Amino acid sequence: MTDDTGDNGATRPSSPASRKVYFVSDHTGVTAEVLGHSLLARFDHLDIETATRPFINSRERAAAVLEEFTKLPRPPIVFSTITDPAIRELLSTGAETHLDLFGPFIKQLESSLGQQAATRVGAAHGIRDLGRYQARIDAVEFALTTDDGSNSKRYGSSEVIMVGVSRVGKSPTCLYLAMQYGVRASNYPLAEDDFERSSLPAPLAPYRTKLFGLTIDPGRLHELRSKRRPHTEYASAERCAYEVRQAEQLLRRHNAPFLDVTNVSVEELASQVLLRADLARHR
Amino acid sequence: MTDDTGDNGATRPSSPASRKVYFVSDHTGVTAEVLGHSLLARFDHLDIETATRPFINSRERAAAVLEEFTKLPRPPIVFSTITDPAIRELLSTGAETHLDLFGPFIKQLESSLGQQAATRVGAAHGIRDLGRYQARIDAVEFALTTDDGSNSKRYGSSEVIMVGVSRVGKSPTCLYLAMQYGVRASNYPLAEDDFERSSLPAPLAPYRTKLFGLTIDPGRLHELRSKRRPHTEYASAERCAYEVRQAEQLLRRHNAPFLDVTNVSVEELASQVLLRADLARHR
Repeated sequence: MTDDTGDNGATRPSSPASRKVYFVSDHTGVTAEVLGHSLLARFDHLDIETATRPFINSRERAAAVLEEFTKLPRPPIVFSTITDPAIRELLSTGAETHLDLFGPFIKQLESSLGQQAATRVGAAHGIRDLGRYQARIDAVEFALTTDDGSNSKRYGSSEVIMVGVSRVGKSPTCLYLAMQYGVRASNYPLAEDDFERSSLPAPLAPYRTKLFGLTIDPGRLHELRSKRRPHTEYASAERCAYEVRQAEQLLRRHNAPFLDVTNVSVEELASQVLLRADLARHR
Repeated sequence: MTDDTGDNGATRPSSPASRKVYFVSDHTGVTAEVLGHSLLARFDHLDIETATRPFINSRERAAAVLEEFTKLPRPPIVFSTITDPAIRELLSTGAETHLDLFGPFIKQLESSLGQQAATRVGAAHGIRDLGRYQARIDAVEFALTTDDGSNSKRYGSSEVIMVGVSRVGKSPTCLYLAMQYGVRASNYPLAEDDFERSSLPAPLAPYRTKLFGLTIDPGRLHELRSKRRPHTEYASAERCAYEVRQAEQLLRRHNAPFLDVTNVSVEELASQVLLRADLARHR
């Protein structure tokens, strides 16, 4: 699958047979992308290129998108989240298949909630609740401040402390937990010093119940570290195997739950951590 | 709107009249949450509590969720992304309103793509394309490395450099650009030294075309800074007004595009930055 947002030269070359899929929105396009990609993931043999056209909130902008459609060898598949029926209608005329992602659900929700849906544009990703929004931003700041073992004196405020060896994926997981769920997540890297003792590393000792481990296939770790510092002791297969084994032993010894990140995305990891650490989602 | 993930005591008290909304998924629940929240955002007067139940991939797990439903004063509204029709059917029996978020679109896509949808569970947020996935993780690491003016010698590899005063929201925007779109985004804080010269700050000078400014209402900045360091010169209304004015002048002088973040979410900011800086989405 390839993706572009315009004519900026960063697109991959497309095969002539590939189908074009557009995510068109009157706002950011995030909802259309997320549901669209989820639906497309159900199909195994796809040769498609995707493109997002956000902020299509006027007939003029819709006309510009339609103009793009006419230049394609075949009309595109379009996923849209657009409130104005006239703009939706316009898009439909140029699409081979047009999936209006809000359409099928609004009537049922109106009847269930006993009120009419508003016709304003793009409320979904605005700031609806400033307090909750600020909590997410504060959580991101907290994750940055306590990244990679720094400011461990603030672990008292952490909801979860991710532990694991270098390059296992602790930082992205913490940042995703913060950004998506407002969870205050810290992370602490396990290294040689920590393996030599049978006790928990000193900064972690008071917070045993907040620990959550990440582990990984040693071969995959070797690959990841080799990209960063090729042909070093740090990246060697032996070193990676040793550290993973030691880290898992340490986690088991202290009864910390842990997950294997090999072949698991950050989104999925974060979701599993929430569930297994029994953390509330603050969104 | 309140939210919980279980019985961990972190939930807010609910009013007795509030309706319960569940996002139920056989995988992470991210897609159900995103589309569900987008749909709910169309309704103005909501008194609801939301809860997510991820990894509901067996009849046993579905039965546990149904059991929860029976304890509510009124059956819930359920948004689901579930592949197995038997599990969907089971959930429907306990819901007042059940919205199957994939259902309405699969048939049309099958016919448009000329193939059957797979029945496997949870492909949407797994790792489909390791190279692209790794690019997103690398972009997160890049954003961390070049956060807050550090490692400016790496700006040559940046796709965009966000500039603005302290607390304007540069870091979350960069991290969101990295996580969601794989864009390599750096950020540089503007401070007194930078305002005193008419030239660009030295680390930014070679990269004028990569700059993207953020600005903010001075009163809002005063609030944000006061939370961090109350009653300081840094947080004073006068200081905030001065810095915002100076930063906007600097951005205008060097023809850098900029956006006002007041009342705009990180998601929306990131989307606007992508569009206006003409960056490709690498997802």
